[in-house]
Amino acid sequence: MKKIKIGMVGGGQGAFIGAVHRNALLMDGLYDFCCGAFSSDATKSKESGKSFGLNESRIYSNYQELFEKESLLPAQERMEAVALVTPNHLHYHPAKLALEYGFHVVLDKPITLSLKEAKQLQKVYERSGKKLMLTHTYTGYPMVKEAKQQVKKGAIGTVRKIYVEYPQGWLSTQLEKKGSKQAQWRTNPETSGLAGAMGDIGTHAFNLAEYISGLQLTQVCADINKVVEGRVLDDDGAVLLKFNNGASGALIATQVAAGEENNLNIRIYGDKGGLVWEHNNPNTLRIKLLDKAEQIYRTGGAMLHPQTNFNTRTPAGHPEGYIEAFANLYRNFAFSINQQHDLVEYPGMEEGIRGMAFIESVIQSGESNLKWTDFKVYDGNNN
Amino acid sequence: MKKIKIGMVGGGQGAFIGAVHRNALLMDGLYDFCCGAFSSDATKSKESGKSFGLNESRIYSNYQELFEKESLLPAQERMEAVALVTPNHLHYHPAKLALEYGFHVVLDKPITLSLKEAKQLQKVYERSGKKLMLTHTYTGYPMVKEAKQQVKKGAIGTVRKIYVEYPQGWLSTQLEKKGSKQAQWRTNPETSGLAGAMGDIGTHAFNLAEYISGLQLTQVCADINKVVEGRVLDDDGAVLLKFNNGASGALIATQVAAGEENNLNIRIYGDKGGLVWEHNNPNTLRIKLLDKAEQIYRTGGAMLHPQTNFNTRTPAGHPEGYIEAFANLYRNFAFSINQQHDLVEYPGMEEGIRGMAFIESVIQSGESNLKWTDFKVYDGNNN
Amino acid sequence: MKKIKIGMVGGGQGAFIGAVHRNALLMDGLYDFCCGAFSSDATKSKESGKSFGLNESRIYSNYQELFEKESLLPAQERMEAVALVTPNHLHYHPAKLALEYGFHVVLDKPITLSLKEAKQLQKVYERSGKKLMLTHTYTGYPMVKEAKQQVKKGAIGTVRKIYVEYPQGWLSTQLEKKGSKQAQWRTNPETSGLAGAMGDIGTHAFNLAEYISGLQLTQVCADINKVVEGRVLDDDGAVLLKFNNGASGALIATQVAAGEENNLNIRIYGDKGGLVWEHNNPNTLRIKLLDKAEQIYRTGGAMLHPQTNFNTRTPAGHPEGYIEAFANLYRNFAFSINQQHDLVEYPGMEEGIRGMAFIESVIQSGESNLKWTDFKVYDGNNN
Amino acid sequence: MKKIKIGMVGGGQGAFIGAVHRNALLMDGLYDFCCGAFSSDATKSKESGKSFGLNESRIYSNYQELFEKESLLPAQERMEAVALVTPNHLHYHPAKLALEYGFHVVLDKPITLSLKEAKQLQKVYERSGKKLMLTHTYTGYPMVKEAKQQVKKGAIGTVRKIYVEYPQGWLSTQLEKKGSKQAQWRTNPETSGLAGAMGDIGTHAFNLAEYISGLQLTQVCADINKVVEGRVLDDDGAVLLKFNNGASGALIATQVAAGEENNLNIRIYGDKGGLVWEHNNPNTLRIKLLDKAEQIYRTGGAMLHPQTNFNTRTPAGHPEGYIEAFANLYRNFAFSINQQHDLVEYPGMEEGIRGMAFIESVIQSGESNLKWTDFKVYDGNNN
Repeated sequence: MKKIKIGMVGGGQGAFIGAVHRNALLMDGLYDFCCGAFSSDATKSKESGKSFGLNESRIYSNYQELFEKESLLPAQERMEAVALVTPNHLHYHPAKLALEYGFHVVLDKPITLSLKEAKQLQKVYERSGKKLMLTHTYTGYPMVKEAKQQVKKGAIGTVRKIYVEYPQGWLSTQLEKKGSKQAQWRTNPETSGLAGAMGDIGTHAFNLAEYISGLQLTQVCADINKVVEGRVLDDDGAVLLKFNNGASGALIATQVAAGEENNLNIRIYGDKGGLVWEHNNPNTLRIKLLDKAEQIYRTGGAMLHPQTNFNTRTPAGHPEGYIEAFANLYRNFAFSINQQHDLVEYPGMEEGIRGMAFIESVIQSGESNLKWTDFKVYDGNNN
Repeated sequence: MKKIKIGMVGGGQGAFIGAVHRNALLMDGLYDFCCGAFSSDATKSKESGKSFGLNESRIYSNYQELFEKESLLPAQERMEAVALVTPNHLHYHPAKLALEYGFHVVLDKPITLSLKEAKQLQKVYERSGKKLMLTHTYTGYPMVKEAKQQVKKGAIGTVRKIYVEYPQGWLSTQLEKKGSKQAQWRTNPETSGLAGAMGDIGTHAFNLAEYISGLQLTQVCADINKVVEGRVLDDDGAVLLKFNNGASGALIATQVAAGEENNLNIRIYGDKGGLVWEHNNPNTLRIKLLDKAEQIYRTGGAMLHPQTNFNTRTPAGHPEGYIEAFANLYRNFAFSINQQHDLVEYPGMEEGIRGMAFIESVIQSGESNLKWTDFKVYDGNNN
Repeated sequence: MKKIKIGMVGGGQGAFIGAVHRNALLMDGLYDFCCGAFSSDATKSKESGKSFGLNESRIYSNYQELFEKESLLPAQERMEAVALVTPNHLHYHPAKLALEYGFHVVLDKPITLSLKEAKQLQKVYERSGKKLMLTHTYTGYPMVKEAKQQVKKGAIGTVRKIYVEYPQGWLSTQLEKKGSKQAQWRTNPETSGLAGAMGDIGTHAFNLAEYISGLQLTQVCADINKVVEGRVLDDDGAVLLKFNNGASGALIATQVAAGEENNLNIRIYGDKGGLVWEHNNPNTLRIKLLDKAEQIYRTGGAMLHPQTNFNTRTPAGHPEGYIEAFANLYRNFAFSINQQHDLVEYPGMEEGIRGMAFIESVIQSGESNLKWTDFKVYDGNNN
Repeated sequence: MKKIKIGMVGGGQGAFIGAVHRNALLMDGLYDFCCGAFSSDATKSKESGKSFGLNESRIYSNYQELFEKESLLPAQERMEAVALVTPNHLHYHPAKLALEYGFHVVLDKPITLSLKEAKQLQKVYERSGKKLMLTHTYTGYPMVKEAKQQVKKGAIGTVRKIYVEYPQGWLSTQLEKKGSKQAQWRTNPETSGLAGAMGDIGTHAFNLAEYISGLQLTQVCADINKVVEGRVLDDDGAVLLKFNNGASGALIATQVAAGEENNLNIRIYGDKGGLVWEHNNPNTLRIKLLDKAEQIYRTGGAMLHPQTNFNTRTPAGHPEGYIEAFANLYRNFAFSINQQHDLVEYPGMEEGIRGMAFIESVIQSGESNLKWTDFKVYDGNNN
């Protein structure tokens, strides 16, 4: 398979998620990481790019320059795709511009600062004919793929209950006042948008619930909190959920569960049984059956769906982790760009739109005295 | 210590919880199980009593007869306490009568069919000068005691979040139509009261949350569901919670989580850390600390509170289970009746009243379009 | 069922295992605990007996007096069985005498101080026509019963490998010099016999291996250690094992694994799969299958053997612990004495003899320069 | 840091470990994967190389050609290091030749077919001045690093017991007769050497024990088995261990534990406590302390050694797996070649020599009637 030439916007030295993107795209040898604009500070961008081993001529000062100059290079050299690993307020414009220049786009979630922006981006995207991937990383885990397939084939029967949780503890204190850049942009409405925790991690939990269950959210009832003093965005929340088949559930997203790391987990129950997947033990999928022995499926093990195996690198018992899940996204995206393989699947524009609708509906619900708020992607005027 | 002569109402052969009560009260040799009325069917009562090795003269046909005849026996023979192990609709009258006759009372939760009845019972109880224990079994586990003490001494700081779950799966199908007596009375409003799952297990979860945290519930927002076709009482629900110190949380109680057994668990987070206790692994208490190694405390292990140890029978590594937790309640009750030991503690009238208020507030919230419903024990008229 | 009148030798106030025996025999209401000689100190014996609520006339100063006086009581009052909960050097004589007086006997393991004594006791036992139970507690767990049945029905195929471990840490320091009676008698050859750890816990591990696998040990190769300074008996050891069907394995028994509690566990592998049982999580049996999903069986759950269910008290999800396992032994013994129920099963004389042979063969192997030592119950002279 | 130009011998399409090597070396962008000889079949080598995106001119037909032709390229193009991912019989000659040509070498374990060969390679290596890394992958895990440091700083006191296990189940049937290449070369003495399971996985377990404990093995007593019919090399074994400080232990390595995946785990106990690391849960290190609460350390979490953090890519709660551990080896090797960073550490020649001595001593012990066999690296003649 031809390597895809990829660049990066943001993710300079020291940025957590930039490094993960690089690990993930490099791992399988499917991309040629060739250029980037790694910081709004031109000097830092240069230094970062050099530390990544890039040719200096292809380290740029900003994303506009990156897109323009790369577009002028000969086709066999030119960047084909770009990964935007910037804070939320720097999603919409760079993504729009990249698509307009004809580059495929990889984007962190949430897709934009608002649902309105997301829909505008959708139009640009549709016109562009290019691919767009949104890094809902957790759907890249083999056993998350398997969970979806188990629900699909009826292993747990008709879904009745969905419980999804994403507790973190790292924002339990005012880290944003102690120099943490990660904390600063996430707690600032200008860079993070309407939501804090609900945007940062709530969207992952929401996406995971819809992805595995195959259902769509229809109503929410949210308790949205600003727990740590001085916060203007939510750092905690819990949401009651209603789905389009009548199933109900609950979603928890908090960044003030002191002592928790990144403990995403989901449990889905149907009329025949339930399933459990936990990010702390990501290579295990538990299927609990009514009046039968519980079954444990394992990454690389026997009796798994072809799509699960397509996203697995090692034999059973060789743990695959977060970077592998991330790399699975990039791998699927590469196959998609090269138009290969029928098992290819990754989150994109549609998931981005729904994620923004999630943020807006839970924040609106949080402010409402009424119990239920509709989850709405489009209003009555076809918007 | 003098053995306490105890009788039983209900709990004939084949009744699950009656057998557990007997195991629990017999285990420590603190009670003399001497009499009872085990069924509304006099023949069954006789047979049951005989199978328990009781003297036939003290096996009665109904609770009225039990109380009356026992009260006429000489003091050194006479029953002193009675365990009522009947469905909910047979709590109030037998308990009232027992107290009026001067017997101490052990009662399953919920304490009565309504908050109003509970308050009436409270008056009888207060006049009686007798003891009353409500079998919120889970508070009898050593590591639940330890959890309470850890919160109290500030191990996790000021409590911010409480998540408590009680998923069961046994009512995932219409068992009540397949001859299950356990299912029949629990799904019937006449025998169960206002609530199904919320009364049967939601009250345990609620009690556990207040017990460990030392906080009191102030507001609820409930999604109450009748999932299995034909049910007239809830078999499932989720509740958003607000507590009197500003903490918030969520409570899940469901009997349709197919594949789950009896998976009660609680997580409480403060500003310094969190704690986790799971009924499936009841001898372990996890304390997760912000920026420190997690700590695992174990029943019988080192560094535990005296009250924890008072409720422990074996050295570390010898698992103590459900019957031991139940026996701890009976053991505390016996010490209380004999007025011994300053570590004695068990759930009683107050927990019963609050449990009924929980049921009434979550059912009311479930029917309300407003988000928040006050948790109220007493109305404005001192009732 | 008629209650069995039982007495006790040893197990006065403060003795760990005496209290467990009482909890276990009382729990199910199958025994009438009526008498005992609880200490070699007559005053202590009296005080203990009174604290247990016994009639003073039936608290004795020593076991000889107990047996003699009880044997003279009318049949409907007289003790029928006696539990000997004394250190190892007080097993043989009291057991022999009890059998000769016509009492059924419950005895802690190891059965005697030597294999020779055990065989002498066997002769007395066979002549007596009485029942004898040896408290290999761990075989009383429901999921240990299930494990045996799963092997028997071929779930894991022909057994090839057996790994059994019993790590404890409580003897990691010289507790015997710090006033611990538990440590003192176990580290003293006069009261403990030929072996320390191998007798105290190694015999449990050995018994569990033979019980579940249905195989018999044929050869051992032991590394026997005295780790803590000053010990004259082993406090640690590891043994390579050969079984009569050609299977091999390893047994670990140590009391100096600092930080371990009582972490008995066993894994058995056949040509189709393996099983895992762990005392720290005793209500779970894992069946790992070659090229299939792992299966989790749970106490009280679906699809279990009748014998498993016969030894289960509560529905799935209500943890049963050490005292319940112990009570299962007593319950089976009571059914056996009353000649009821075809599922009845408990460890007895045969297991006692094999346990002594285990101790003698591993200690002999530990002193040998040759790799393999035969496991021999009988020598060539029919002894 | 300058990228290191690396080539590969073996590891064509479909080979498990070759793919892992590529994932691992590519992930961090520290190597330029530029050439290789991927199969003894020149056509297959070409196809594989092209599928990896290599320039055709640098895909060679065999390792001799690879080394010769690369050595003739200009310095700025020429391969600097080579990864040998071939079966055991193709370790010695390619490694020797590579070193003689002046290439750094990455080598799978065991290092050669015999201890004698290993020592010959050592001489070549010492003369070469080049670096050699042996891929004992498991020492690349962050929590294995942490375990070593915890022992070093005395967290568990003086080491007394080491238990290490490596159970796999994949060779439970005659896979080698069903077309599995992985099984074929591992069960064939010509390609695998003196040992089967003991060489393939026993060496990993041995290395892990010495690595974490900081101790050296001095004596072994091995039970070595050929369980599956027709095998001429061991597929199973258990070894009693003695270490140079007097500590003892046991090692289990089996490939016939049907149902097990790759369940390496180690427990080390000192006089103050013990530690547990399990490959199935590799980001957790449990420190069990005598008379204190157990402590749980987690990859990316607080209070870890700088060397642990140096081998960690993501914040706590983002699982790092097998490929990351492998990548850590490559990362340390790259830093070493570029002579940077004082935390750099990786297994090499010394571990290779000791691994061969392990294989030879356990196989010799397996054939001996004596209990103990010395673990010897060098004989009396300075060999």
